[in-house]
Amino acid sequence: MRFVSFEKNGKATLGVRDGDHVRVIGDEPLESLLARGVRLDEYAKTRATEDKVPAAGLKFLPPLQRPPKIVCVGLNYADHTKESKYEQPDYPTLFLRVNTSLVAHEQPMIRPGVTDCEGLDYEGEVAVVLGTGGRHIAKEDALSHVAGYALFNDGSVREYQFKTPQWTVGKNFDGTGAFGPDLVTADELPPGAKGLLLETRLNGEVVQSASTSDMVFDVATLISVISDAITLEPGDVIVSGTPSGIGWARTPRLLMKAGDVCEVSVEKIGTLRNVIADEAAR
Amino acid sequence: MRFVSFEKNGKATLGVRDGDHVRVIGDEPLESLLARGVRLDEYAKTRATEDKVPAAGLKFLPPLQRPPKIVCVGLNYADHTKESKYEQPDYPTLFLRVNTSLVAHEQPMIRPGVTDCEGLDYEGEVAVVLGTGGRHIAKEDALSHVAGYALFNDGSVREYQFKTPQWTVGKNFDGTGAFGPDLVTADELPPGAKGLLLETRLNGEVVQSASTSDMVFDVATLISVISDAITLEPGDVIVSGTPSGIGWARTPRLLMKAGDVCEVSVEKIGTLRNVIADEAAR
Repeated sequence: MRFVSFEKNGKATLGVRDGDHVRVIGDEPLESLLARGVRLDEYAKTRATEDKVPAAGLKFLPPLQRPPKIVCVGLNYADHTKESKYEQPDYPTLFLRVNTSLVAHEQPMIRPGVTDCEGLDYEGEVAVVLGTGGRHIAKEDALSHVAGYALFNDGSVREYQFKTPQWTVGKNFDGTGAFGPDLVTADELPPGAKGLLLETRLNGEVVQSASTSDMVFDVATLISVISDAITLEPGDVIVSGTPSGIGWARTPRLLMKAGDVCEVSVEKIGTLRNVIADEAAR
Repeated sequence: MRFVSFEKNGKATLGVRDGDHVRVIGDEPLESLLARGVRLDEYAKTRATEDKVPAAGLKFLPPLQRPPKIVCVGLNYADHTKESKYEQPDYPTLFLRVNTSLVAHEQPMIRPGVTDCEGLDYEGEVAVVLGTGGRHIAKEDALSHVAGYALFNDGSVREYQFKTPQWTVGKNFDGTGAFGPDLVTADELPPGAKGLLLETRLNGEVVQSASTSDMVFDVATLISVISDAITLEPGDVIVSGTPSGIGWARTPRLLMKAGDVCEVSVEKIGTLRNVIADEAAR
């Protein structure tokens, strides 16, 4: 089942895909349903209304607008670690995103108006949304905690990412973390979303291409290792890392400018599309 | 005015200090009041009840249990940057904490049960709680966005902090971020909480001692600079950095073990006290 959050009559609305339409199921956000322990597929069946809207032209919202936390994984594809000139750590490289950085499918990703930002960089990734939380989750049980998967473009302001020893600010500018369009329930995908082709395209040209099986730490391992330190909660999002091909590592650099179109596609999950826009003048 | 969150009959309760008692004002959490734009001092005046409980023996909660975000500042006292063997960056070194890492005054700070953790390190700090949010907040206006100040012990699992290029996991273990006891409204303190003596004591011995005026980036600058990248929201917490004296930089290392007592005191804000406990066996 494929859940989408969108705006209808100015109100956040939840729906499920039904062919080229979306069937409205209510206005309770996914993070609230997950926090209440609701099984999404059963909920959708009991709540489906006759109210259907065409998917084309929807004003999408991020599938979850306020997840309890967003844990991102750096250096999780060996080729990307190499192009980034890091040694491959034997533990996942974690950083966090705040909710204010999220932006929906088909909404503009924002290149900030700071003077020393040449352009925004793309990072196509698979996002994992947890249905149930826990601490010290065994790797064997980890995938049973997944509600579903979505796409993420971990838009990065590189000049800020490297201003200090911590990447945080370069990863958290408003409107840089594209998330969506669908939350695809785990049953629709191979376990751990393995073996899927991940592709990022900039203005139609393929700039990243890899199999999700190339993750250094797979989804089950990430859930297990993170939960050894941090209590995971329903609705938490784990953004599982990007393969090689980022713009910052190229010669010459390839950074996104206003008007560029960036798409992240993963087989069976879909395509996340965003136009780049400059931050509005203050 | 000094606000405290605590548990009463198993329920989260908000109160204000009244001598050695706490006067109950309701059960709406501070983060919710701030999100609604409520002025805390006015609210407290209109809501004060006759229900008073002795402050001694209260089961405290963090002043805010689920702030929208917790932005921590590393390397914000020059002596600490030096002992940490970093160059002083000319931009604040930001990292984030998740809510699941928070622990209240007088609750145990947890040394995790992972095998490679020699002990938990202390970092005494001033936490700034925002009353109003914004983006691109001018430094001159920044302090008007502050609701109040609290104390923070940014407990750090150093072995994990340095496993990868990002500190995140070492700063986010459950029960390592002590926060409280009071949210002291800004009008009770010098502007920006400047010029106050910050002291951390481990088992009664002073291990950190500095003036809050020694921050490399003061509170107004932090708010302004962070908001240039990230929309700040009411209830957001900025943890403003620790001075020198951390246990990891000492020879021999001084790390906290079960039974140790750590106190963070800042003049006019109060004292945050935590006993260290080992994580319960799984």
